[in-house]
Amino acid sequence: LNNNSKSYTLGYLAEYVGAELTGSRDCVITHVATLESANEGKISFLANPAYRKQLSKTQASAVLLLKSDLPECKTNALVVENPYYAYARIAKLFENIPLANPGIHPSAVISNTATLHPTCSIGPFCYIGDDVSVGEGSVIGPNCVIDNSVKIGKQVHLWSHVTLYFQTEIGDRVVIHSGAVIGADGFGFAFERGSWHKVPQLGKVSIAADVDIGANTAIDRGALGDTIIEQGVKIDNLVQIAHNVRIGAHTVIAGCVGIAGSTVIGKYCAIGGASCIGGHLTITDKVQFTGMSMVTGSITKPGIYSSGTGIEPNLSWRKNAARFRGLDELFRQVQRIDKQFSKDKEEL
Amino acid sequence: LNNNSKSYTLGYLAEYVGAELTGSRDCVITHVATLESANEGKISFLANPAYRKQLSKTQASAVLLLKSDLPECKTNALVVENPYYAYARIAKLFENIPLANPGIHPSAVISNTATLHPTCSIGPFCYIGDDVSVGEGSVIGPNCVIDNSVKIGKQVHLWSHVTLYFQTEIGDRVVIHSGAVIGADGFGFAFERGSWHKVPQLGKVSIAADVDIGANTAIDRGALGDTIIEQGVKIDNLVQIAHNVRIGAHTVIAGCVGIAGSTVIGKYCAIGGASCIGGHLTITDKVQFTGMSMVTGSITKPGIYSSGTGIEPNLSWRKNAARFRGLDELFRQVQRIDKQFSKDKEEL
Amino acid sequence: LNNNSKSYTLGYLAEYVGAELTGSRDCVITHVATLESANEGKISFLANPAYRKQLSKTQASAVLLLKSDLPECKTNALVVENPYYAYARIAKLFENIPLANPGIHPSAVISNTATLHPTCSIGPFCYIGDDVSVGEGSVIGPNCVIDNSVKIGKQVHLWSHVTLYFQTEIGDRVVIHSGAVIGADGFGFAFERGSWHKVPQLGKVSIAADVDIGANTAIDRGALGDTIIEQGVKIDNLVQIAHNVRIGAHTVIAGCVGIAGSTVIGKYCAIGGASCIGGHLTITDKVQFTGMSMVTGSITKPGIYSSGTGIEPNLSWRKNAARFRGLDELFRQVQRIDKQFSKDKEEL
Repeated sequence: LNNNSKSYTLGYLAEYVGAELTGSRDCVITHVATLESANEGKISFLANPAYRKQLSKTQASAVLLLKSDLPECKTNALVVENPYYAYARIAKLFENIPLANPGIHPSAVISNTATLHPTCSIGPFCYIGDDVSVGEGSVIGPNCVIDNSVKIGKQVHLWSHVTLYFQTEIGDRVVIHSGAVIGADGFGFAFERGSWHKVPQLGKVSIAADVDIGANTAIDRGALGDTIIEQGVKIDNLVQIAHNVRIGAHTVIAGCVGIAGSTVIGKYCAIGGASCIGGHLTITDKVQFTGMSMVTGSITKPGIYSSGTGIEPNLSWRKNAARFRGLDELFRQVQRIDKQFSKDKEEL
Repeated sequence: LNNNSKSYTLGYLAEYVGAELTGSRDCVITHVATLESANEGKISFLANPAYRKQLSKTQASAVLLLKSDLPECKTNALVVENPYYAYARIAKLFENIPLANPGIHPSAVISNTATLHPTCSIGPFCYIGDDVSVGEGSVIGPNCVIDNSVKIGKQVHLWSHVTLYFQTEIGDRVVIHSGAVIGADGFGFAFERGSWHKVPQLGKVSIAADVDIGANTAIDRGALGDTIIEQGVKIDNLVQIAHNVRIGAHTVIAGCVGIAGSTVIGKYCAIGGASCIGGHLTITDKVQFTGMSMVTGSITKPGIYSSGTGIEPNLSWRKNAARFRGLDELFRQVQRIDKQFSKDKEEL
Repeated sequence: LNNNSKSYTLGYLAEYVGAELTGSRDCVITHVATLESANEGKISFLANPAYRKQLSKTQASAVLLLKSDLPECKTNALVVENPYYAYARIAKLFENIPLANPGIHPSAVISNTATLHPTCSIGPFCYIGDDVSVGEGSVIGPNCVIDNSVKIGKQVHLWSHVTLYFQTEIGDRVVIHSGAVIGADGFGFAFERGSWHKVPQLGKVSIAADVDIGANTAIDRGALGDTIIEQGVKIDNLVQIAHNVRIGAHTVIAGCVGIAGSTVIGKYCAIGGASCIGGHLTITDKVQFTGMSMVTGSITKPGIYSSGTGIEPNLSWRKNAARFRGLDELFRQVQRIDKQFSKDKEEL
């Protein structure tokens, strides 16, 4: 897994995450691991109650946990208020992502009018167009295409094969994974005399600071006005965000989601995987959709929403799904029976 | 937005789109904008009745509209029969997509046997294989891979990171956005002695003129015979089109749609986002599927079709979705009650 | 289609696939084709009973078929136990995929510490990082990015624009189509003080031998521990596989499927297109999901499972879908009526 040679004393780690330490300050930690797989030298964490039963049996040298879970812990413990967050910070110490070399790879093709901060790194086979700017410490991985007038902030990390169409704006500390396409044309066509005619997509994509974007995700430029991803939004792989969508700050969007044009999604929402949100809708703040939700109307009240039906054996499903087409008629039939039944009783 | 320096008189624009002008011929237009955001120097349009209430309040210098909307208009008006199409044509005047330089970028790797029209543009880091032909005025963006025997027509625009597998045929004026993959193997495997064995995919992909293809879309080559996209088809981002599918002329396919193998879709259809169409089906002309439709059978009658259930609060959804599994039983129960009820009444 | 100049006698082909030949050993076969489109010189096959009615009318020079279909065959026949598999083997003889030149393209950028077998082929504009190894006969197509410490086995074929993040392991004979991204970060964030914080993804992706992966598919690296694709798994285009998923040997996954984190799928499963499988689930061996299934719970029993409702005309769908939200109430109403009805009858 993480075959590095980093090691920290538990005392150091406790101080680093602001934890209350129970046990040995001098215990040496060399790796992170799950409660189930951890053994000597490894630190684990308990954040999801579903794993609580593994706490007493873990072979980890230390565990990050809530005060309330401390009594069950038989090894060294770091008591914190948010074990998952504390784990994330400690895991970061053990991460060994390959470091990009600062500087411009000689194979890259860079416009004379681009402004690249001297500390940034431009990988092999990158194309960087006219009037592009790239900020301090940003890393552009191999085979990226950055078209004219793109603005990239500081400490940004584009992995490989990322495409940023012209005029795209990328805030500080944004991470974009391989194959993502930002700023392609929105899907706009006008019908006239038997065929579809392109509607120019004159807006751009604007992505605020601290946004993460997953592999092969596509975010289209605006038609008139921009497509906007606000600060801290996290977007998973293979997500489609259409033109003129606005995603509110700190919203998370799981894989395979599609969001149609001009829809506005609030802050702190959570969109479950493969959900599909129609166009021209407004979703208020703190709305959560479970996976595969079909959203065809606006939502004005925070809360958890769902749609669809879960799997069942194919044989019974065939019968039930066929019945669905008669559902309205069934309701009418039951109402009729109910009414007649009540009437008959009165008559009796 | 579109910070160009282009400007046109309203008189010029009226003539350009064949509009009847009401107001000042000399009014200078420098931008396009929505009714809501427009102000002086901007032309807007009213095409969607949902925005009619913004017409009387718009600060636009001019509006493209239907004759029937003219009475509500308090600014200069261009009366046309298709305001959205007229808008598209005017917006095109204000578009400023970066122009590709004609010629072959020195970094591109081009087979000696490729035939490239002298007016075409080949971007940096493109690979162009044996016996490829590229027509007049076509633009191949950076980092595209065009494998052997591909034929590309005139005025085609491939953005960046487009892959065309060997033998793919691309008609005139086709636009393909970044990351699209055309001609990868169809998903065909034969099961034998405990494992799956590749079935060679011997067909190709043939794309007619005036087709648009979105970012990260995949269209597989045929197994036997070809996968065919007819003229004027418009395909959005992240769409999957399997082997031997045929899409009829002028059909539009929204984002995240999946179409399984050997299905034939008619002309002038509209496939809503995230719809999933099974294999070996035939969908007639002028069929429309709303978003997230699950299509498991052929369709012989034009019209609008839908499936699925919309979102509701998670708490009530859990109850309703659980009940779905008892739907067939409920129908039987109601029939039984109804029959018994009628019988009892007769007996009374 | 397959405009090659290969030809084989039927006698040779019979021996090659171990078939019992009925007809002329000397008949010359130059192409493969469907029953419907085949004519002289072409061999076809009958594997799907739906096409049986085409057998007696085919103009093919020979047909691969089951013994039970032989009586209906009016041309030369090769009787085999698995016609589709035998067809796949014969089609392979007629395949003419462009061959990659062995050796390293001069434009490729290769780390000094990479170990490339002398028989392998590295295409133009490939980047190959530190400590990468590539085995005998493997082909890396144009514009691929292979990051540090990736291990690639023998006879592997990466088409173009494939990204392998650091530490990814690829078994022998794996095929990966264009645009696939293997090893990007899993979607893990911890919430603290109003925003989401990255949880380092310390695992890798491990792909066993004989796996096929489709275009633009994404498979994320593990958070702690690895994401594992076992031997012989076949994955179609635009599939999303999240961190720490394990896919059992010889399972097939159709296009547009999404599988959420930490889910374990058994061997010999078949996941229909656009299905969505929730996180932390366990699916046993030999489970089949029909297309667009929504899987929210674990499955312990092999079999075919389904969910959702099929399309119907939009007008009736609107009524039925609206009724879905009252389904639980309807069940209660019917139970009440039924109970009261029975009680009344007793009282009578």
